[in-house]
Amino acid sequence: MSTTVPVRPPVPELRTAGSVLPAARPQTPFLRLDLDVAVARYRRLAAALPGTAVHYAVKANPDPGLLARLHAAGSRFDVASPAEVLAALAAGAAPGDLVYSNPVKRRTDIELAHLHGVRLFVVDTLEETDKVAAAAPGSAVLCRLVTPGEGSDWPLSRKYGCSTAQAVDVLTHALTLGLDAAGVSFHVGSQQRDPGAWAAPIAASARVFDQVRARGGRPHLLDLGGGFPARLVGGCPPPEEYGATIGRLLDQHFGARRPDTLVEPGRGVVAEAGVLTTEVIGVVRRGEVRWVFLDAGVFTGLVETLEEAIRYPLETDRDGGPTGPCVVAGPTCDSADVLYQDTMVDLPLDLAEGDRVRLLGAGAYTSCYSTVGFNGFPPLVTHVVP
Amino acid sequence: MSTTVPVRPPVPELRTAGSVLPAARPQTPFLRLDLDVAVARYRRLAAALPGTAVHYAVKANPDPGLLARLHAAGSRFDVASPAEVLAALAAGAAPGDLVYSNPVKRRTDIELAHLHGVRLFVVDTLEETDKVAAAAPGSAVLCRLVTPGEGSDWPLSRKYGCSTAQAVDVLTHALTLGLDAAGVSFHVGSQQRDPGAWAAPIAASARVFDQVRARGGRPHLLDLGGGFPARLVGGCPPPEEYGATIGRLLDQHFGARRPDTLVEPGRGVVAEAGVLTTEVIGVVRRGEVRWVFLDAGVFTGLVETLEEAIRYPLETDRDGGPTGPCVVAGPTCDSADVLYQDTMVDLPLDLAEGDRVRLLGAGAYTSCYSTVGFNGFPPLVTHVVP
Repeated sequence: MSTTVPVRPPVPELRTAGSVLPAARPQTPFLRLDLDVAVARYRRLAAALPGTAVHYAVKANPDPGLLARLHAAGSRFDVASPAEVLAALAAGAAPGDLVYSNPVKRRTDIELAHLHGVRLFVVDTLEETDKVAAAAPGSAVLCRLVTPGEGSDWPLSRKYGCSTAQAVDVLTHALTLGLDAAGVSFHVGSQQRDPGAWAAPIAASARVFDQVRARGGRPHLLDLGGGFPARLVGGCPPPEEYGATIGRLLDQHFGARRPDTLVEPGRGVVAEAGVLTTEVIGVVRRGEVRWVFLDAGVFTGLVETLEEAIRYPLETDRDGGPTGPCVVAGPTCDSADVLYQDTMVDLPLDLAEGDRVRLLGAGAYTSCYSTVGFNGFPPLVTHVVP
Repeated sequence: MSTTVPVRPPVPELRTAGSVLPAARPQTPFLRLDLDVAVARYRRLAAALPGTAVHYAVKANPDPGLLARLHAAGSRFDVASPAEVLAALAAGAAPGDLVYSNPVKRRTDIELAHLHGVRLFVVDTLEETDKVAAAAPGSAVLCRLVTPGEGSDWPLSRKYGCSTAQAVDVLTHALTLGLDAAGVSFHVGSQQRDPGAWAAPIAASARVFDQVRARGGRPHLLDLGGGFPARLVGGCPPPEEYGATIGRLLDQHFGARRPDTLVEPGRGVVAEAGVLTTEVIGVVRRGEVRWVFLDAGVFTGLVETLEEAIRYPLETDRDGGPTGPCVVAGPTCDSADVLYQDTMVDLPLDLAEGDRVRLLGAGAYTSCYSTVGFNGFPPLVTHVVP
């Protein structure tokens, strides 16, 4: 057998080639990632959550320049694979700055993380707790609770999390295995527009803490997850509203026994730092409907438009004149490569082939979701503004 | 600005490193691609469709070794981007062996294809016909008809195709632009289990041919599209049944004026040549439900499991004993990374961490749909059996 390796893993081997300056008008499509914006978003979220450690979720965008800037600004990291561990360490993070949040992990991946000094792992079953105890003895574990995900544009309740009763069993089991049964983790769903979504899981977490204490444990850490939204179509409350609501809920449910807390924002930090610039390759009429075809699509980074879940604000070269509804599609010959159809987008009526369309708030879950080059269309390129 | 290029485009730069032999038990996940099987599938489909040119759809799997073997066996190619044009030419194809089937193309992409000698393009609007006339003057065009996509596991009707009346207008317009109004194209939907799905579009194509002739045209080519299925869960009729049905339909609707015909199979050629081997990273209970986590998932090549559209037959190291239903999930911490849940999969009850699970019929739309490395999990690697 011969071996075809289509591409190298982008993490941690991603390089920011500082000497390569793109042309004044670089070829589309590309993601322009402004690190100052990401750092500003990080600082604002951290300020809105005083006393809470902010662990940037590397999966949202693993650009090494971004990770280094966030580390320098004080951010910690949420990782979910060996490559993400190494990327965070390469950015300057200490192993103690990392939470390994993937609830089901390959055993050798846990071992590798442990070898590099990672000591905090999320689990949600007895089986995984056994695995962590064997592969990373003496570490701390957080047990992830299931949440309904209501109010979020990209719910996460399907795959991970257990009930409060199971969490008590998991954490008690962790104690017997010599682990630090550190506490609880949950995730309210990505792009969560309702700060109130934290109410039920914080209340549930407090119940778990009480019951684990009653069984002899000393839980001390609550992982409030991610879900902090970016300003996309439909808007969202500001970070301060999330911080205030969460602070109130912690007081209400934990009172004087408030544990250490951490959050894992991805989109909330990096989405608004990214603008994805595309070019119109064609505007055609299908019956009464105008279709705008772009040179970026579902397979070049815009996977989150599936089911039209994430709606990016759009700017064009022709803004200012009259607009009308249109379907927006990507460049591949795959029929799944349609961004917005059920709810059409208003775009200028004179938008034409060769015009540029910019998708705002596109710094998260785009370059990393891109395919290796489906249909011969290259993966999304990032131009970093350092 | 500095530039981060996450990965190089895999087409046409994919290399088959013949000197690199994987270990006897290579690290999972990987796609094992047996080129003899692909060639056998090609030959069987070609034999089932006598007189019809078979253009392998490069998008299904652009492995350069595969393209070279298919070319040597007599296959032509269906391409949809400059990279796919170059990959087909690199495999030995002549430009006249290519149909550029993407109905909406970037103008410079058409120019590049034309520069390399490609002379057959699919369109489905007046606007795109103008574009082809300008960028590839004198070429032949096929106008794509819309089809309902019923009976297919991955319908394609959403994005492309026009009505018969519009097709007549498009082809008549092509004549006035000095193009060869060659005929009609359609696509019945990928993994199409019903040979009867070709009936309505062949009848519609014949009507278009008649009307174009009445307007002075001389249509001569019918592109019967792809959709030829692989043997996945649920089964499908053999290629011979498709060939017989299509032959009957061509006789019925075109009689003595049967045009030249071509097909564009992707999955039907390459799917059964591929086995995707994964390893179980964990088996956990969520309430009453058993969850099996694999080290390959939606973001490492198994996108077609979204909505559980494509169901791969599974083999495991533990086959033979009692089985029970389970949910099957991938390794990333993304909740969308679940392969089969609504309809669970029967797998051995003693399946455990470290066991291997093989997905059959996985040669198409896997390695090319893989992300660049979301969540730090590398893109799917292919091991070619030449």
